[in-house]
Amino acid sequence: MAGPLSAVSSHVNAQVPGTIHEGGELGYALSVSFGAVMDNPDLVVTCVVGDGEAETGPTATSWHGHKYIDPVESGAVLPILHINGFKISERTIFGCMDDKEITELFTGYGYQVRIVADLADIDNDLAASMEWALREIKRIQQAARAGQPIVKPRWPVIVLRTPKGWTGPKKMHGELIEGSFHSHQVPLPNAKTDPEELSSLKHWLLSYKAHELFTKEGGPVKEILSVVPTDPHKKLGQRKEAINGYIPVKTPDWKQQAVGKGSQESCMKAVGRFLRETIKENPHTFRIFSPDELVSNKLDAVFDVTGRDFQWDIASRGQGGRVIEILSEHICQGMLQGYTLTGRTGLFPSYEAFLGIIHTMMVQYAKFTKMAVETKWREPHGSLNYIETSTWARQEHNGFSHQNPSFIGAILNLKPKLARVYLPPDANCFLSTVAHCLRAKNYVNLMVGSKQPTPVWLSPEEADQHCIAGASVWKFASVDDGVNPDV
Amino acid sequence: MAGPLSAVSSHVNAQVPGTIHEGGELGYALSVSFGAVMDNPDLVVTCVVGDGEAETGPTATSWHGHKYIDPVESGAVLPILHINGFKISERTIFGCMDDKEITELFTGYGYQVRIVADLADIDNDLAASMEWALREIKRIQQAARAGQPIVKPRWPVIVLRTPKGWTGPKKMHGELIEGSFHSHQVPLPNAKTDPEELSSLKHWLLSYKAHELFTKEGGPVKEILSVVPTDPHKKLGQRKEAINGYIPVKTPDWKQQAVGKGSQESCMKAVGRFLRETIKENPHTFRIFSPDELVSNKLDAVFDVTGRDFQWDIASRGQGGRVIEILSEHICQGMLQGYTLTGRTGLFPSYEAFLGIIHTMMVQYAKFTKMAVETKWREPHGSLNYIETSTWARQEHNGFSHQNPSFIGAILNLKPKLARVYLPPDANCFLSTVAHCLRAKNYVNLMVGSKQPTPVWLSPEEADQHCIAGASVWKFASVDDGVNPDV
Repeated sequence: MAGPLSAVSSHVNAQVPGTIHEGGELGYALSVSFGAVMDNPDLVVTCVVGDGEAETGPTATSWHGHKYIDPVESGAVLPILHINGFKISERTIFGCMDDKEITELFTGYGYQVRIVADLADIDNDLAASMEWALREIKRIQQAARAGQPIVKPRWPVIVLRTPKGWTGPKKMHGELIEGSFHSHQVPLPNAKTDPEELSSLKHWLLSYKAHELFTKEGGPVKEILSVVPTDPHKKLGQRKEAINGYIPVKTPDWKQQAVGKGSQESCMKAVGRFLRETIKENPHTFRIFSPDELVSNKLDAVFDVTGRDFQWDIASRGQGGRVIEILSEHICQGMLQGYTLTGRTGLFPSYEAFLGIIHTMMVQYAKFTKMAVETKWREPHGSLNYIETSTWARQEHNGFSHQNPSFIGAILNLKPKLARVYLPPDANCFLSTVAHCLRAKNYVNLMVGSKQPTPVWLSPEEADQHCIAGASVWKFASVDDGVNPDV
Repeated sequence: MAGPLSAVSSHVNAQVPGTIHEGGELGYALSVSFGAVMDNPDLVVTCVVGDGEAETGPTATSWHGHKYIDPVESGAVLPILHINGFKISERTIFGCMDDKEITELFTGYGYQVRIVADLADIDNDLAASMEWALREIKRIQQAARAGQPIVKPRWPVIVLRTPKGWTGPKKMHGELIEGSFHSHQVPLPNAKTDPEELSSLKHWLLSYKAHELFTKEGGPVKEILSVVPTDPHKKLGQRKEAINGYIPVKTPDWKQQAVGKGSQESCMKAVGRFLRETIKENPHTFRIFSPDELVSNKLDAVFDVTGRDFQWDIASRGQGGRVIEILSEHICQGMLQGYTLTGRTGLFPSYEAFLGIIHTMMVQYAKFTKMAVETKWREPHGSLNYIETSTWARQEHNGFSHQNPSFIGAILNLKPKLARVYLPPDANCFLSTVAHCLRAKNYVNLMVGSKQPTPVWLSPEEADQHCIAGASVWKFASVDDGVNPDV
């Protein structure tokens, strides 16, 4: 830790072992989970989504995310929708849906649904459901890996219904606490001054029977310690995926894709060829996440060597592929984060106007990275890489509706240690920039370019020598550098 | 129009009669529609959602929007999900769902579903389905308005399946165009140079039989003109809701809620009292849209006179209410836009960190307003009003995860004609500011404040005299003013 640990963060952050996610903004736990299991065939991520988060748009569309998981090459996400019925103060949408509505909705999303709601025997109910879910996951994976994939496999989802604030204080001053919004965060706010609340607090805390859980010296009793796994890989906080799983990307020689000085070349066409080679060199550790603009952005040379990983399309299903194209910038961003923070490398190309859609997610990611860099036991991970085209400076047939250069500003507002904006002047410089960014660690990289042919000002050798150092924004951002000097 | 009409916009915009929406970013047609029908009991909005847009998060959660429509006081949205199977280049999620999956999903969302896919007789199929849908809407509304509301009413949704590029060119150079992504936007890109494409283009355009539709003088034939309604209210482009339906808000005297100079007062508590009075004065033309932070933001005095309009909560259902609390900033923003652009006034209070989630939607809204102001036949509409609390300068129990002041910057990046940021220094100034903003027209207004008690520096009279003029950001933004000098 860079500074003294003067306080614990209010929400989950990089200082919490096992975390790959900054708390605060809700809505992308599910898409981050899908990104984490991609190309991790033995990993099962259990993703708990509250019924508050479930109301967000990013979550509502992320339930479709399983349709982009190839059971041959990737692991599985086991979503647990936890319905307690209330948000900060209003009832939730899911809390007001009955079992039939819930089952229909998630069946429509493509899942098989199991509802856990037996409050009298919740531990057994949940344990049995988890076993069922893991068996179903295995069944889908084994079939696919044996070359007999199930068409449109129905992955399991668990829906857990418990009252909000369950086992906490029941009532106070005549108002329900358990089973109501009053149990959100601080159920007894006046325990310091109100003797009735203090007594309720005492009664509640004693119900945990701490004296049975701890020894007189203050450590956990043997029975508790005996369930802690000895295998570090089985401890959530020590999983390599979340701490030190970085797999350096092998960048091919970008000069193979370069063009002659004085010619005309589309930056994106050149980058497409480079990405094609990158995919060949990194068949299981590099992916592209795009909101359906890969061909429009002229990066389609990648399709010479790979496909789109959309399992629900029966025609192409099961062939895998390094490209996810889904018209949800939120899902693209979430999957990219999950994929990157578990040690792999990704790229998110999009139009200028649409990267701003995930501006706050990008900022939350940068907060995570800031704290991760300052947390000693965390090793570096790859960078979050964006390519931005269709800028206001060179629009295609779109006009005012498609202009919004604000994403550049959003990134320049971050600490220079964390973020870079590149405006490469030609195709050769763009190639050099992409190769650099894919190798860089712990950054948010934004590369701004054009898809139409533009003059090539520098030879490959000149680009190699001057391009990165010559980009003014890079120089500007470098002032406070030092984290990552060797790439 | 301010300048000459040198070009038609590439996507729908304010210059198109009947429009209340800027094209470009996808995902909020549905929430805007729900906002438009609120407090418009006789209005039915038919909202066509493509299967590309349907993949976005904002749309995925907006299907729940009908649960916030009280059939007594509001009209209805008839969503038509148009599935043609392809986005720009990839298959769509909905295009790869069969009828059973589609029916289950939308039944789970709470709808009754009718699928229109009879290509041989599509006009009759769609017409019959529209009639069915309108009858179902009437049935739900009549029951509720007769005091016998249907519990969890199942509003209709139509799912229309047609091939992408239907009736356009079938094939070119051995590749499918109709029924494939090749028909996106420009199906025959090389018609200018390729004789085969030119011939196909000619064949296609002739298929519309223009000679049967137009007279020799170039006007439409009588049969066409006979279907144009004579009643202007029945012409989409002349509906008052979309052009000149502004209903000025009655702002109560804010000084009634003011506090003495030298005291301590929470700005939000004072504003809550003012909003309570505003709701009393404008029982059918003012609403609050909040991502579940109204009580947390200490604006809950409004609940003395109104409730939350969540129909799916059987306990409170049918009581109506001026507050929508849904944990989706995207839905809040979309509903607010639809409500505002059809002539009413709304307010969107939220935490600093979360308004940035809808930053691009706000920018698209401002583009619409810019063009609307420049379009002569459009009359002014109310402003889009935000209150931002829990700022980095005065956080509650949340920390780093909840800090992001970028929304201020996003608004200051807009033209000063369109946008205002207010930082009122105390509760009296805040009251004066809110009263001012609710009356203002054609602006995006951001009011930044605190929910904890802070010193009151100015008496109500001093606040009245100096507050708006004294706010530095306001003065800064006023430089290029002139649109709206009288409020």
